Amino acid sequence: MHEFAMGSDQMEALTLDICADADRAIVWQNSRLYLLDQRLLPLQERYIELQSCAEAATSITDMVVRGAPAIGITAAYAVVLAARAAFAGSATDWRRLILPDLAALASARPTAVNLRWAIERMTSVMLGLPNGDPEAALLAEAKRIHREDVDANRRMGAIGADFIGRRTSVITHCNAGALATGGYGTALGVIRSAFSAGLIDCVYADETRPWFQGSRLTAWELSRDGIPVKIMTEGAAARRMCEGDVGWVIVGSDRIAANGDVVNKIGTYNLAVVARHHGVRVMVAAPTSTIDMTVSSGEEIPIESRDPDEVLSCGEHRIGAPGVDAWNPVFDVTPAALVDVIVTERGAVLLPDAKKIAELMRN
Amino acid sequence: MHEFAMGSDQMEALTLDICADADRAIVWQNSRLYLLDQRLLPLQERYIELQSCAEAATSITDMVVRGAPAIGITAAYAVVLAARAAFAGSATDWRRLILPDLAALASARPTAVNLRWAIERMTSVMLGLPNGDPEAALLAEAKRIHREDVDANRRMGAIGADFIGRRTSVITHCNAGALATGGYGTALGVIRSAFSAGLIDCVYADETRPWFQGSRLTAWELSRDGIPVKIMTEGAAARRMCEGDVGWVIVGSDRIAANGDVVNKIGTYNLAVVARHHGVRVMVAAPTSTIDMTVSSGEEIPIESRDPDEVLSCGEHRIGAPGVDAWNPVFDVTPAALVDVIVTERGAVLLPDAKKIAELMRN
Repeated sequence: MHEFAMGSDQMEALTLDICADADRAIVWQNSRLYLLDQRLLPLQERYIELQSCAEAATSITDMVVRGAPAIGITAAYAVVLAARAAFAGSATDWRRLILPDLAALASARPTAVNLRWAIERMTSVMLGLPNGDPEAALLAEAKRIHREDVDANRRMGAIGADFIGRRTSVITHCNAGALATGGYGTALGVIRSAFSAGLIDCVYADETRPWFQGSRLTAWELSRDGIPVKIMTEGAAARRMCEGDVGWVIVGSDRIAANGDVVNKIGTYNLAVVARHHGVRVMVAAPTSTIDMTVSSGEEIPIESRDPDEVLSCGEHRIGAPGVDAWNPVFDVTPAALVDVIVTERGAVLLPDAKKIAELMRN
Repeated sequence: MHEFAMGSDQMEALTLDICADADRAIVWQNSRLYLLDQRLLPLQERYIELQSCAEAATSITDMVVRGAPAIGITAAYAVVLAARAAFAGSATDWRRLILPDLAALASARPTAVNLRWAIERMTSVMLGLPNGDPEAALLAEAKRIHREDVDANRRMGAIGADFIGRRTSVITHCNAGALATGGYGTALGVIRSAFSAGLIDCVYADETRPWFQGSRLTAWELSRDGIPVKIMTEGAAARRMCEGDVGWVIVGSDRIAANGDVVNKIGTYNLAVVARHHGVRVMVAAPTSTIDMTVSSGEEIPIESRDPDEVLSCGEHRIGAPGVDAWNPVFDVTPAALVDVIVTERGAVLLPDAKKIAELMRN
């Protein structure tokens, strides 16, 4: 991978043609794929050029890019890189040569369904192509996936903001913002829309251990947009709700089961339980590409476990007692019964269940 | 303050006469007061000599020593240092000269009631003393407070372990162990006793943001005692409980109101709500010196807020987005209704309320 530290001049040079109004996690330009290295934010804004599909898969595994929709979009562009390499290898046999790359990409992370969804969509285009160089057609599809995601976020923003009702503070968990998507964001898209409508007092951003996506990414995104944001530890949520000024918890999702169970960053389930106890409502904002109709409940969704060192260390700084292990599941399952509304680009599902989700997906 | 890095030889030299079987947070030896600097654990075991009451107050504020009972014991020894200095200043007027020191000590941290309790107990001895050097009598009282705390922990350990019933895993929050007390621990005292009785499978230690007392102190203490311990993020508690092997949440307390509301480290209230949702029982272990009969409910107890930088940074490592503030309350209030049992050295209070607490305190 090639790294580029982006000063303001260079940032200017990297003008994204799809989504000029948001922080750009994923940039395709001059036939090259760049990712903003989210591991370094907010201290450094540095782009990495991905020169192959394998590098893209590694970047997904290593969380250079994260967030279910952003992982899907990255995978779509990665398929373009894979096709380019395969076609250079053999103009006739490239559809076979590409398979190992696609398999490695699909297994880069297990939980977010958008990864598999994007690869399937790209594969479907690939299979229908005539002979000849596939790059232009595949790139067009990748850009379509990217653009559709931004459009979906805008629609979810408007739909979700309508539920807020009265001016209030909200709590969000992890980062479901522009950085986690093609742009604008899912949960943060709703918050952006609601803020524009004068409905948001303050956003309390859970710091979100162990990766601090709240402190590093959500706080960075919102403060750049001038939206009032305060970071808090996850343990402070119940006390915050006691103070009476929190109307909603608004989060994204990595995969939603057919019954409305929501898989999202570890800690979301805690937060939903605490919200229910305090009469605070829970909104999940996610595009329909996050809904996986092949799993009937959340318990069937594979939950990634990552290296205990993510919990035991902070940067170079060792925290945990020597010789002690950590339990580090990356996601949890919030039962549909704890979710007040799921907001998608096709509409909202109040008090979600299998029947309502099936109806949404038929539309 | 003087710092001493303790190698094994030097540790040997610092033999504590009160409590030889536990990690020693507080050492009085050769007329000097030493504190194990808990900010440096588990990477360094370093003692600081406190040369004055003012230094002790600063050490409490800066969290060299923390944990309600340990703060109380430190304060008792600090009164000895204050009396020594005051008596050196004037053998006749020392009771007046000592007052500013005592006032500063009492305000070192606002929430833990044991600080005030210990100063009041030392003051009461002070007022009854004949003329002459007060040090020996005050030191005897400080040592008594220290010894009584260890004894209370042992009794709570036995009483609390009796409630566990069957072999199970437990979750604890923050550090309510030997390091937070005179020795043995409150919550960790119960866990130590229950482990000895073969009742503990695994202790899940909440890492406890922002100070990581769980990762740094609880994991260190328990692993040194050979008790199986795993660190987890606070957000993982609900998922852990879903796995079905957690029977109890066991925590300490910084102050308990007359109605049984429990003030403890931020995140305890979250954990108690999540425990109730999953049918996991909640035990609070604390000596009666933690019960404050002057406050009728938890909402009357002052909750310390600390520097937002504690949340925004990790060691030298800045985490939070530039220019963004954090909300950093250090404690929260768990309503008595969410507590299954309060264990004290005088006995246990099941489903605590004002009447039962009053009865306990009359005994």
